[in-house]
Amino acid sequence: MSRWEPNASGRLQKAALELYAERGFENTTVAEIAERAGLTERTFFRYFADKREVLFYGSGALTEFLVRKVGEAPASLPALQVIAWALASAGTEIFEERREFSRRRQSVIAANLELQERELVKFATLASGLAHALDERGVVPATASLAAETAMVLFKFAFERWTKDVSGARTLAEIIRESVNELESVTTGRPAAGD
Amino acid sequence: MSRWEPNASGRLQKAALELYAERGFENTTVAEIAERAGLTERTFFRYFADKREVLFYGSGALTEFLVRKVGEAPASLPALQVIAWALASAGTEIFEERREFSRRRQSVIAANLELQERELVKFATLASGLAHALDERGVVPATASLAAETAMVLFKFAFERWTKDVSGARTLAEIIRESVNELESVTTGRPAAGD
Repeated sequence: MSRWEPNASGRLQKAALELYAERGFENTTVAEIAERAGLTERTFFRYFADKREVLFYGSGALTEFLVRKVGEAPASLPALQVIAWALASAGTEIFEERREFSRRRQSVIAANLELQERELVKFATLASGLAHALDERGVVPATASLAAETAMVLFKFAFERWTKDVSGARTLAEIIRESVNELESVTTGRPAAGD
Repeated sequence: MSRWEPNASGRLQKAALELYAERGFENTTVAEIAERAGLTERTFFRYFADKREVLFYGSGALTEFLVRKVGEAPASLPALQVIAWALASAGTEIFEERREFSRRRQSVIAANLELQERELVKFATLASGLAHALDERGVVPATASLAAETAMVLFKFAFERWTKDVSGARTLAEIIRESVNELESVTTGRPAAGD
């Protein structure tokens, strides 16, 4: 086997997701993942600390992407909508082509308490990065935290709707914008103004 | 020592919080907690599964209280404000007299990752109970989840403000109402109508 493997991390992720879905996260070993991907365990550990981290690969890159987008969002948007705008961009540029992968990942995480806790920690870290990015736009820190934490709720909610939408008719970006309107409606009791 | 100990759970909680603050959660044993409270380990285990659960005693009762209040809230309120109304009631009837205890508890949890994860799970459980209570008021299930999860963010946010307010000038209920207005403002970009 040559030392250079094109898209090794992607192949390992795909193999891991298949195995977790087939036999459960708990019953899958790193050796089996590497074998399914046609790669070595050594290659696996070049990308991932353990089999759990396969499911959280890219969290850091997502945070960086969103923080950058928060800096680029239109100045007129209120704080929560700044993050929603960044999330909708991530929908279009990152997630839209990975719907099937995302759907499988959601099922694997839903089946395991340890993974759910890890997912909660991931979102807490992301919220903290986004709150900091809002601070840098001049939002008061406490308000930035409230907006960032609320945006995480919105994101999880929209993401789940998107992975469960088997028709595939609506994009994640559309569902995020809809969810912002829904949040406005449950908060104010008025229908959202629309966009 | 007599078998009947008045307010044994309260004395154990108080002793545990003191010890966690003095020497850290990790470095405190159940034997030490029982000794500080002037009670036996056996009494400790009558109330708490382990030293971690001392910090989460009453979570079930809080959920029950809030679910009942959600059922009693004015029919005219939008979904998120129904929960905020219930949370403000809990502020007045449960938390207001426990501010110092709550403040200590927050510091202990902030210093320990395992406790933070347990706290996240507690809030996830509470959100699910409240979403169900909104369903029973006729709110569409998906909307109920969005409102309940958002309300948890609001509650954590208000709770932290309240425990950090050393002047003690504002009640938790007031801070919760303020935070709803703030959420409205970051979502819509308009100042809240006021109440």
